[in-house]
Amino acid sequence: MEIFKRLPRHIGIIPDGNRRWAQRQGMEKQDGYTYGIDPGFQLYERCMELGIEEMTFYGFTQDNTKRPKEQTTAFQKACVDAVEGLAHRDAELLVIGNTKSPLFPKELIPYTKPVKFGKGSMRVNFLVNYGWNWDLTEGLKNSNVYSRQELLKNIASSEVSRIDLIIRWGGRRRLSGFLPIQSIYADFFVVEDYWPDFELQHLYKALEWYQKQDITLGG
Amino acid sequence: MEIFKRLPRHIGIIPDGNRRWAQRQGMEKQDGYTYGIDPGFQLYERCMELGIEEMTFYGFTQDNTKRPKEQTTAFQKACVDAVEGLAHRDAELLVIGNTKSPLFPKELIPYTKPVKFGKGSMRVNFLVNYGWNWDLTEGLKNSNVYSRQELLKNIASSEVSRIDLIIRWGGRRRLSGFLPIQSIYADFFVVEDYWPDFELQHLYKALEWYQKQDITLGG
Repeated sequence: MEIFKRLPRHIGIIPDGNRRWAQRQGMEKQDGYTYGIDPGFQLYERCMELGIEEMTFYGFTQDNTKRPKEQTTAFQKACVDAVEGLAHRDAELLVIGNTKSPLFPKELIPYTKPVKFGKGSMRVNFLVNYGWNWDLTEGLKNSNVYSRQELLKNIASSEVSRIDLIIRWGGRRRLSGFLPIQSIYADFFVVEDYWPDFELQHLYKALEWYQKQDITLGG
Repeated sequence: MEIFKRLPRHIGIIPDGNRRWAQRQGMEKQDGYTYGIDPGFQLYERCMELGIEEMTFYGFTQDNTKRPKEQTTAFQKACVDAVEGLAHRDAELLVIGNTKSPLFPKELIPYTKPVKFGKGSMRVNFLVNYGWNWDLTEGLKNSNVYSRQELLKNIASSEVSRIDLIIRWGGRRRLSGFLPIQSIYADFFVVEDYWPDFELQHLYKALEWYQKQDITLGG
């Protein structure tokens, strides 16, 4: 494994391409999601070893729930299975999403406040039934002052820190509503391979690229 | 010039690399901005011919105003010169930014409401002393209900439509606060060349790439 001079503190993960991968394998679209769980753990384990402090995984969004029932059921189950897998590892988990909708898996409600597994070494945020508009508006309902600090304090994802690097699998070069506030200055790396075809080399390429970027925050 | 099957309705432009270009030419950083004006008009003219309905140009941000005085003066002047050049062409111009700050060029205040030049064929939005946080919070101060429609109706940039394609020059793969709401589903194309080295081929490559993208809006 390579040595990196400058690592991101917080990495955002958009694990896209599960359905396209399944179709390429001759499976039904919804069968792809279950093959996306193990790659997530490989990525988490290696980022832990590298000392990454925080990771945020894009589970599913409120927009995704417009998809056919067999798909929504499949990605809901994959999210629950992923959390059960993480519960046997070392992380502080926070699930963020709209719990008021029936599409939010009830099994995950206990994790909508941070929960430590093991030593709770790495902060892992998991977006489940998340919506960018829900994120921005939900919290703001409860605030009166709109200074910069207040905005960031009041959005639904206010416990999620600024993201340094976003890695998206599946070739698409768009954020698709992924934490718009925390992603403002994030460097965006796209992997062409579909998420179930994850390899550690994808992570290393993203980190090699990231350490060459000049962080200015507009200054 | 090539024929495109599917064109974006609205293109966002991040014209980055003026300072790095100037340094490479052996000039002072601030001397780069004036070389960024003509490329903007070449791009605008060709997009007009292609029938693009709306373009949004990133002028400068509130974060940029932390830079040395000679740079802020230079990019403020470049923005004013760009608008004066556009006034002799065919566009409906809207300048969006925080006019309450002394860093907003007073000459541009008349354009903070849409103004037609010529037939007013193409809508051109120009972000001047813009800040993502200002955008989201300023308008929200005046609204009480936070339905999705209300949020989009109340942000400071509410007259700017959803962006289909963002093209950024200068090699950086980040949005840097560019219209976070309208950019949610935008496809993001990065040109390695610095903005003053603009060529129409950059636009054509971006449009060729864009028409191959699959637009799902999360569905």
